[in-house]
Amino acid sequence: MKYERGLMAGRFQPFHNGHLALAKQALAECKELVIVVGSAQFNFIEKDPFTAGERVAMIHAALREASCDLTKCFIIPVPNDENNARWLAGLRSQAPAFDAIYSGNEFVEYLVREQDPSLAVRKPKFVSRQECNGSNIRALIASGRQWKHLVPPAVAGVLEEIDGAKRIKMLAGADAAPHRW
Amino acid sequence: MKYERGLMAGRFQPFHNGHLALAKQALAECKELVIVVGSAQFNFIEKDPFTAGERVAMIHAALREASCDLTKCFIIPVPNDENNARWLAGLRSQAPAFDAIYSGNEFVEYLVREQDPSLAVRKPKFVSRQECNGSNIRALIASGRQWKHLVPPAVAGVLEEIDGAKRIKMLAGADAAPHRW
Amino acid sequence: MKYERGLMAGRFQPFHNGHLALAKQALAECKELVIVVGSAQFNFIEKDPFTAGERVAMIHAALREASCDLTKCFIIPVPNDENNARWLAGLRSQAPAFDAIYSGNEFVEYLVREQDPSLAVRKPKFVSRQECNGSNIRALIASGRQWKHLVPPAVAGVLEEIDGAKRIKMLAGADAAPHRW
Amino acid sequence: MKYERGLMAGRFQPFHNGHLALAKQALAECKELVIVVGSAQFNFIEKDPFTAGERVAMIHAALREASCDLTKCFIIPVPNDENNARWLAGLRSQAPAFDAIYSGNEFVEYLVREQDPSLAVRKPKFVSRQECNGSNIRALIASGRQWKHLVPPAVAGVLEEIDGAKRIKMLAGADAAPHRW
Amino acid sequence: MKYERGLMAGRFQPFHNGHLALAKQALAECKELVIVVGSAQFNFIEKDPFTAGERVAMIHAALREASCDLTKCFIIPVPNDENNARWLAGLRSQAPAFDAIYSGNEFVEYLVREQDPSLAVRKPKFVSRQECNGSNIRALIASGRQWKHLVPPAVAGVLEEIDGAKRIKMLAGADAAPHRW
Amino acid sequence: MKYERGLMAGRFQPFHNGHLALAKQALAECKELVIVVGSAQFNFIEKDPFTAGERVAMIHAALREASCDLTKCFIIPVPNDENNARWLAGLRSQAPAFDAIYSGNEFVEYLVREQDPSLAVRKPKFVSRQECNGSNIRALIASGRQWKHLVPPAVAGVLEEIDGAKRIKMLAGADAAPHRW
Repeated sequence: MKYERGLMAGRFQPFHNGHLALAKQALAECKELVIVVGSAQFNFIEKDPFTAGERVAMIHAALREASCDLTKCFIIPVPNDENNARWLAGLRSQAPAFDAIYSGNEFVEYLVREQDPSLAVRKPKFVSRQECNGSNIRALIASGRQWKHLVPPAVAGVLEEIDGAKRIKMLAGADAAPHRW
Repeated sequence: MKYERGLMAGRFQPFHNGHLALAKQALAECKELVIVVGSAQFNFIEKDPFTAGERVAMIHAALREASCDLTKCFIIPVPNDENNARWLAGLRSQAPAFDAIYSGNEFVEYLVREQDPSLAVRKPKFVSRQECNGSNIRALIASGRQWKHLVPPAVAGVLEEIDGAKRIKMLAGADAAPHRW
Repeated sequence: MKYERGLMAGRFQPFHNGHLALAKQALAECKELVIVVGSAQFNFIEKDPFTAGERVAMIHAALREASCDLTKCFIIPVPNDENNARWLAGLRSQAPAFDAIYSGNEFVEYLVREQDPSLAVRKPKFVSRQECNGSNIRALIASGRQWKHLVPPAVAGVLEEIDGAKRIKMLAGADAAPHRW
Repeated sequence: MKYERGLMAGRFQPFHNGHLALAKQALAECKELVIVVGSAQFNFIEKDPFTAGERVAMIHAALREASCDLTKCFIIPVPNDENNARWLAGLRSQAPAFDAIYSGNEFVEYLVREQDPSLAVRKPKFVSRQECNGSNIRALIASGRQWKHLVPPAVAGVLEEIDGAKRIKMLAGADAAPHRW
Repeated sequence: MKYERGLMAGRFQPFHNGHLALAKQALAECKELVIVVGSAQFNFIEKDPFTAGERVAMIHAALREASCDLTKCFIIPVPNDENNARWLAGLRSQAPAFDAIYSGNEFVEYLVREQDPSLAVRKPKFVSRQECNGSNIRALIASGRQWKHLVPPAVAGVLEEIDGAKRIKMLAGADAAPHRW
Repeated sequence: MKYERGLMAGRFQPFHNGHLALAKQALAECKELVIVVGSAQFNFIEKDPFTAGERVAMIHAALREASCDLTKCFIIPVPNDENNARWLAGLRSQAPAFDAIYSGNEFVEYLVREQDPSLAVRKPKFVSRQECNGSNIRALIASGRQWKHLVPPAVAGVLEEIDGAKRIKMLAGADAAPHRW
């Protein structure tokens, strides 16, 4: 194993095939993996329809279904902090120690370089960002088009249980937020 | 009376005829009424020009003018919470107990169903959302068009006292917020 | 009338006879009265057992019982702000405009003098602070002694409805707060 | 199994034998278990020496060592909320859905009864609160007395790695907090 | 000298020639000058690329280079407050006392008039807002056009040291913020 | 010079001779000095009587009086963060870059070692902590004893101007805080 513990972070609205591919890659290279569920305090808004708890449930179910070794995985909700300059320090206070960050995002790599150049940044091998990204998937759901091929079956299952499609459609509407009434 | 205490929530920027009609309907169906002034921490921004205190004053004046029984009314400012999943619980901590929510907003109904299915949701009888909504009224004021027919005379009176039209016009401008300087 | 609108602030844990006497005094000297329920975000802790909503309900019931003119009263919950230097400005953003503050607290008078010397400060005529103060009343309740003579009957009624004595006794215990578990 | 998913919450400063016994009891009665690490935003203070991430690591290691089925466990850090009246709603937004709460704390039981009477509250079978509680263990560590018999060996191991005893001793000192300098 | 102490506020992303001209004007009219660095908690986002500390360093270097008397200057970072109605009171709690505000912004003047009519508002003599404004300068940098003539050389120097152009370009990209991943 | 820029942090309630001695020592060893005024959001409470702005004014006046080179000094208010694990990262976002920390506090040294072992920690040469500490000085003032010999004359001057002794005496009283009323 190359690393003791890798970390990947995202909002996972919802957790999709790209996320799962990255988790598998990290589990192949690291003894353990931390998955940080960001924006944990947000939910029931257009950009963040699902609660942190629902997202944890999705990820757990998807990893189990994919036969990932759950005993090596940590799924950790973390609320946002306005102050990006202390992003890595805040992350470190909420997650078990990690020595690699998995991200295909150029800005994440930049932040890591600025805040701790000694930390490894690993890029995703599987990339299909065009299709496999949360905002595209939410748009597909909102407009009633095909989307289930983009997420692990277990995630589609969780969404069905909580009637996630209904929620996403409602939140796409103009007045769907207490502060807009 | 159908209900012990109804609750209606809004930002009331400003309190308009649609709001007043809903308050009257609630007072006809409930022994008492709570009016929650949302986004209470915001003011002097384009979307939220008036302070919570000014909005409380508008509502009080409008209810009095309309001969509503003020001894049965509670007007309660409540700051926003980012976490919508605890919206109803937060509301309950700030307002006297209520057994019905008055709202024409589909999303509010959805949130109530998710967070407490036993709570009644009552829809407004009077609906003229096209004209009677805060953002339209602020736009009319900002552009110097007719708007007074859309609000109770007492609200127009409060706006005149605090020169609300001037404030709305200023806030419509591009640099009108400390964080934009 | 000496003043347009008076304001009195407190935590009202619970609202007692001293508070009611002050409200009556203010209503005799002012056209209208604002009662600010402070520390509105706290509840179910030893020092703040009751929610803002429960306290609003107590005050409303007590004023009604005492035949105060409720159409002249505003009861406004306001969360604390750590920054005392902007205390008055924050208060003004949440309450309708006021030109007198009612308080027997020397420090409140000091803050008002520092933050707006033009604002009138009115002292309570009725003073029985030894007995009539929230922390004493909570201690009496917690230890099962006589306390009902210190609060308006309507407040005792609200406490009975929500079984306030049980709550106060529980909160007096050592581990009664999520952060202590 | 009696329950789909149980939840136990604590600050786990540190995770001790009482906590582990409760986790085992819950895993015997529930298909899955959520362990909520409270006060997640605090660390490096006397009452909360360890970061949320360090506590997650302790719990994970202790469960693994005790041969608990980690694939059925969720370890979730949650920051405190000042507003206890929305405690359960906040918890539900951060954790996967649960139908039982495990706690020996009378106040927790009271909060659950107030906020959702339909939720089961399960009491710990093993009770040795006198010895097995965080504040006692921290005091033993601070004063250099025996404490390792009170925590799972794996927790003692994590504490050794991060030199937790040194940290606890330092934090027991008078000036150990930025706001005290 | 007309005033004891002037104050000018801005986000200074980055500090440009218009800002410097205003500082010089204020130093010519006041014994001392406070420069408030607003939105101090933000950084590494498109609108606010630089940390408060970096902005303090820019301003200090620019004033020194322009032979302003630094012994008369205070450079004070202040985080935003959502509640604009207490903006002036909040400012006063963070800065040494001042008797004049320097601003060309109509809204600032309006806020000062509302919150303390006795405070002097001084307008900038030098005005070249079209070119000399932060968002234009950031756009020039992001697109690789000429921008150095719009800022004091010392500011260009600080930007070079921290490779500010790279940061601005990165932040102009679509996914450059933790909450967008 | 040994260091490019040193940093010392404190609450400075008030700034005393020990603080001034440390500032002089740092200015002898560093090209520039940052003085961080912590707990910047607190004021008008017993432990934190003075606003951040008043403390900035005290420090500025004391440094000038002591003929320190003010053009090399930065005085920066910083609000507290509950999360100590990101203390250094937060500090770095608010202050110009520094390569040494001046502190006689063992815990500060510990935090720096944990969060960035490469940062130098410099200890104060002058130590008279028994007498020269904020809480002792506030106690002397509150009880009307001698205290002026413990602070720079300029600080005594600022305190006289704002009648700091009166404020400290008032705040020492039992009910001196909005949340206590």
